[in-house]
Amino acid sequence: MKLLLANPNSTEALTRACATLARAAASPGTEIVTWTNREGPPAVDSVYGDYMAGRPLAMRLAALAPRPDAIVLAGFGNYGTGAVKEVVEAPVVGLAEAAMAFATPLCHRFVIVTTSPRMIAYTEDVVQLLGFAPRCAAVRAVDLPPIAAGEPAADEVVAQLVDAVTAARVGDGADLVILGGARLAPHAEALRRRTPLVVVEPVACAVAMAEALARLGLRQSKAGKFAPPPRPLGEYG
Amino acid sequence: MKLLLANPNSTEALTRACATLARAAASPGTEIVTWTNREGPPAVDSVYGDYMAGRPLAMRLAALAPRPDAIVLAGFGNYGTGAVKEVVEAPVVGLAEAAMAFATPLCHRFVIVTTSPRMIAYTEDVVQLLGFAPRCAAVRAVDLPPIAAGEPAADEVVAQLVDAVTAARVGDGADLVILGGARLAPHAEALRRRTPLVVVEPVACAVAMAEALARLGLRQSKAGKFAPPPRPLGEYG
Amino acid sequence: MKLLLANPNSTEALTRACATLARAAASPGTEIVTWTNREGPPAVDSVYGDYMAGRPLAMRLAALAPRPDAIVLAGFGNYGTGAVKEVVEAPVVGLAEAAMAFATPLCHRFVIVTTSPRMIAYTEDVVQLLGFAPRCAAVRAVDLPPIAAGEPAADEVVAQLVDAVTAARVGDGADLVILGGARLAPHAEALRRRTPLVVVEPVACAVAMAEALARLGLRQSKAGKFAPPPRPLGEYG
Amino acid sequence: MKLLLANPNSTEALTRACATLARAAASPGTEIVTWTNREGPPAVDSVYGDYMAGRPLAMRLAALAPRPDAIVLAGFGNYGTGAVKEVVEAPVVGLAEAAMAFATPLCHRFVIVTTSPRMIAYTEDVVQLLGFAPRCAAVRAVDLPPIAAGEPAADEVVAQLVDAVTAARVGDGADLVILGGARLAPHAEALRRRTPLVVVEPVACAVAMAEALARLGLRQSKAGKFAPPPRPLGEYG
Amino acid sequence: MKLLLANPNSTEALTRACATLARAAASPGTEIVTWTNREGPPAVDSVYGDYMAGRPLAMRLAALAPRPDAIVLAGFGNYGTGAVKEVVEAPVVGLAEAAMAFATPLCHRFVIVTTSPRMIAYTEDVVQLLGFAPRCAAVRAVDLPPIAAGEPAADEVVAQLVDAVTAARVGDGADLVILGGARLAPHAEALRRRTPLVVVEPVACAVAMAEALARLGLRQSKAGKFAPPPRPLGEYG
Amino acid sequence: MKLLLANPNSTEALTRACATLARAAASPGTEIVTWTNREGPPAVDSVYGDYMAGRPLAMRLAALAPRPDAIVLAGFGNYGTGAVKEVVEAPVVGLAEAAMAFATPLCHRFVIVTTSPRMIAYTEDVVQLLGFAPRCAAVRAVDLPPIAAGEPAADEVVAQLVDAVTAARVGDGADLVILGGARLAPHAEALRRRTPLVVVEPVACAVAMAEALARLGLRQSKAGKFAPPPRPLGEYG
Repeated sequence: MKLLLANPNSTEALTRACATLARAAASPGTEIVTWTNREGPPAVDSVYGDYMAGRPLAMRLAALAPRPDAIVLAGFGNYGTGAVKEVVEAPVVGLAEAAMAFATPLCHRFVIVTTSPRMIAYTEDVVQLLGFAPRCAAVRAVDLPPIAAGEPAADEVVAQLVDAVTAARVGDGADLVILGGARLAPHAEALRRRTPLVVVEPVACAVAMAEALARLGLRQSKAGKFAPPPRPLGEYG
Repeated sequence: MKLLLANPNSTEALTRACATLARAAASPGTEIVTWTNREGPPAVDSVYGDYMAGRPLAMRLAALAPRPDAIVLAGFGNYGTGAVKEVVEAPVVGLAEAAMAFATPLCHRFVIVTTSPRMIAYTEDVVQLLGFAPRCAAVRAVDLPPIAAGEPAADEVVAQLVDAVTAARVGDGADLVILGGARLAPHAEALRRRTPLVVVEPVACAVAMAEALARLGLRQSKAGKFAPPPRPLGEYG
Repeated sequence: MKLLLANPNSTEALTRACATLARAAASPGTEIVTWTNREGPPAVDSVYGDYMAGRPLAMRLAALAPRPDAIVLAGFGNYGTGAVKEVVEAPVVGLAEAAMAFATPLCHRFVIVTTSPRMIAYTEDVVQLLGFAPRCAAVRAVDLPPIAAGEPAADEVVAQLVDAVTAARVGDGADLVILGGARLAPHAEALRRRTPLVVVEPVACAVAMAEALARLGLRQSKAGKFAPPPRPLGEYG
Repeated sequence: MKLLLANPNSTEALTRACATLARAAASPGTEIVTWTNREGPPAVDSVYGDYMAGRPLAMRLAALAPRPDAIVLAGFGNYGTGAVKEVVEAPVVGLAEAAMAFATPLCHRFVIVTTSPRMIAYTEDVVQLLGFAPRCAAVRAVDLPPIAAGEPAADEVVAQLVDAVTAARVGDGADLVILGGARLAPHAEALRRRTPLVVVEPVACAVAMAEALARLGLRQSKAGKFAPPPRPLGEYG
Repeated sequence: MKLLLANPNSTEALTRACATLARAAASPGTEIVTWTNREGPPAVDSVYGDYMAGRPLAMRLAALAPRPDAIVLAGFGNYGTGAVKEVVEAPVVGLAEAAMAFATPLCHRFVIVTTSPRMIAYTEDVVQLLGFAPRCAAVRAVDLPPIAAGEPAADEVVAQLVDAVTAARVGDGADLVILGGARLAPHAEALRRRTPLVVVEPVACAVAMAEALARLGLRQSKAGKFAPPPRPLGEYG
Repeated sequence: MKLLLANPNSTEALTRACATLARAAASPGTEIVTWTNREGPPAVDSVYGDYMAGRPLAMRLAALAPRPDAIVLAGFGNYGTGAVKEVVEAPVVGLAEAAMAFATPLCHRFVIVTTSPRMIAYTEDVVQLLGFAPRCAAVRAVDLPPIAAGEPAADEVVAQLVDAVTAARVGDGADLVILGGARLAPHAEALRRRTPLVVVEPVACAVAMAEALARLGLRQSKAGKFAPPPRPLGEYG
């Protein structure tokens, strides 16, 4: 099976980091092919970044050849996930929906930790839109510097994650944590050593879910929301 | 006051139709300036269309000079409304949020009629995201042909609207109808002669709300969700 | 346009304070006429006060001649707002619904600050009833003395408001504050100098919304909830 | 125990009908004393009627001497129930809250049948305000003539009730019906012979609940919403 | 009237403690008969305990002869309450549903205090399932030792209850407290002397509600959820 | 990997039918081991059946040796799923939660079709408890005879499924259908040929999810709801 890991932003280092996680999570027969949204922003760090990412993401994935068996969109947000589902036949899975889907059998209420305080509102909207609000105890944030500055030391990120998780456990009653962003995903293993909560790393979940959907012959329904757009794609500008 | 009426799609005829409604609704001192999203799709008729519209809409409005006193986004949906609110200082109002805000003091529950069955799911998501679900009895649809085919006869559209409104009154308990799209807005007056429900035409509401916000010195909060994106806009791709 | 500003309580000083705010917010052609509910309580400070206000308010406004073009009910609560909408043809707007309607395009989640801790439950019910709960982060309170004692020093009120707003920002994630009462409305300008949150003053919003509804020919739907009462008003006691 | 059955409207025939139901439901030691809101409207058939009822209801019950051990408010709605709870020390129970409270252990979802189509919106607001929406499958209506016309033949009312209940069973999945008004309560017994659904008659429930609260020494909390109004009652107008 | 007080767990001391509360709450003509689930666990302290209790509880109560007029299930949880309602004709009332039903007319929002932190999630699920979430401000916990250790000193339990209640009042806006477990119920009287909040003791509520239902001829609806199981009970294993 | 497929009821034919579906869905390296709850009921066709199944299910699975790598509970309901999660270390997945989790990325709103009308209320409670209500358009039912009668002809079942799905598409706006029971699962393939909606077969989803969880090292959180019961299992009766 060929699974496309599509990074909605343009930062190749993030594509590589996600690919490492994806390959570690994939089944033996799965080939992970990566794609980076070079026309997109370096990070989806705002609604503006979300829309800057979504248009080229949807356009380019619609035209992709040869077609993969399934697509993982390696961002924790919206950035046109529904648009990609409309224009592609293969199953498409985003990080947020996969992580929350996998968290549901494992916990009472989960906390999502996002990358910066300003992304809390954005992430709450994603949770609401995907219908997982009844299981989400809270969205909390660490405070990563802008991506151009390079990634901070892992210790520093993990320390911030531990603080956020502890606050969510005590204050919100969360018993599971979802790492809410591709930049946070690589710290899952280290965080697991520091908290009794189950830590859900979303890239692995999305790869597992996409593989499973492809294997089971399931894909997004074309009988409603994700039907192909009503006019030829070339006419959309 | 200079109010920009920005059409998120590329169909100039729709810009003109909305401008007519906007000018009829505006206060004496308000100048309506129009802008059409020439790089966008002919219509926002899908999530794909939404994202194809949103990127150029947000980019171009961010760079607009001279700045208007307020902006009305003349589409009934999402298409990056939040992105525009982030990159612009002036108050920004979309049709959906304005129409629902104005409907709340006027009714028990409203119905939104959208332009085609496939836009029902899309519109339900917009209602949910904006937080108006407790007041929305239903989203229903007429079935307009693709916009390239030209607009159908007004009589035909109004007849379909009357059917949808009657169904919503009897089946959903709605006592007010919101015309859920720029293509439907021009039929408000004719529909009013055919139904006892209050008919809310969204362009007029958005113009009135944008004028009021500008006059009162109110705009989107920059203390949270709509803070400017964290990096210079030129770096977003 | 003649806009009636009706104070649901009997305190003339509040009528005057609201009239000042209303006139500052009104469009050039709008005449603000005031009315005070002399048979009502000095303040709507309880459910008892609410019902004491609502009966004379609805009775007297039903009989008012000549009829204004629109009515603003200058209290932040319920106090028979729906009853007035039933018995009057002109559009009727209360402070709470107008403030929340205008807040929706401007923020992620708003906080309402009410006048005393005992009004928190009352105000939560108003928010719930009007359907704005999904956008309301919290209702918080300052603690004003009973109205008969006269208004406390503005500095003291503003200091309390700043404390409530700060708590709502940090604890509830609010990015906009609504001043939840006619007694608090005059402090909007001073509060704006002390907080980065957008401050919504409800009298101005209600005036702007009522003006807009009248100009657009919109009023409460008579096809459902706000139909005239089924018997002659004189028979209601 | 002395239990006051207070009719919020001025129609003595309804007071008597409710008293008959109340006495049939009361425990041996309970004395039912009736009170009719002579300054109120003949029926609470609108929000206007609700507020016309609530003020004299709350004023007169606040002054009542000697105090009863518990009070049943024999109307199915709001009409100042909270105001009475504020001004009275004895436990106060309304028909709607008692009927829904007693329905919860008995069913999956209940339907409320109200007295006329225009009361559906009003009743939905009551359900929402009292917090029972998750258990309410629907509010439906029969169509009684105005109360002044006298009551229609029982057969006719029961036939309408059967139609509404059947529709609610098939269309809404309801397995229990609450008779949503004092005018409907006397038909409970006849309706039971015509439907397999459990029929909840609200006067009996309210009497039983009020008796129980009084016997157990429970009453509305004075630590929050129902604290006494902050000023002497004589100052409320 | 003969009312069966059925303890879902096997701890006779708890049966006796509940019987004391039940008899104090019962009407003169009511005989309280007790039953202990000897095949069940010593306490329902987990979901495992819940299911260990529910099977013998439902089996034995289905076969009980002679049949009581009503049944109170003296545990604060689920433990097959719905199963008992299916297999029994007499009205069946659990502690949680009775306590919440009686709390609704008395407060704005209640807090439930449960017996240990691990039961918070369990109790939140019970609240959700019964549909009372809109009225529940929070579920909080004291931390009782396992039941085998014997009950701690009353002073110690009450001190913990006071702490939980104070936190719920200040932090969650609760104005009424429900004692969420048979082990806590006997401390209601002492807690009342230590808090201004109304304290709801669930055994008394359930007895009063069961008595009332039996007297009024009401029982769980057999037209839906609580219809008898479709095969003879002997075939269920 | 060894995956245990545990049938919560005692009908071996259903275990075999589910095993066939499970083996078709499993990855190459996965061994499916089956287990039938011989002490349970022939079907979970009621709440009584649910509790009759749950106790032996949880007891026996707690004692199972050697331990599997993951457990699929092959029933569409509750029947003590949480209890099993408490007493087992390996990841445990039920059909309902797996099917809904896999449906979320694929649709706007799903319909669940259950095996008989009386299971609609039961299934609605399961959906609510698992937190998927925002995505569930409706629960509908076919009407299978009691399981002892043997399975009806496949054509007959599929015809009923097609009717239910069509009603859900037109009346509820569903664009995906979940087969809500092990007895319906084998008809997925035939139903796919008869409807444009995506058909989710829950056994395959649960197998895929359980495999993925085991491979990723994820299991239910022991930091909250699913912590081991507080006393030795042998003491639970």
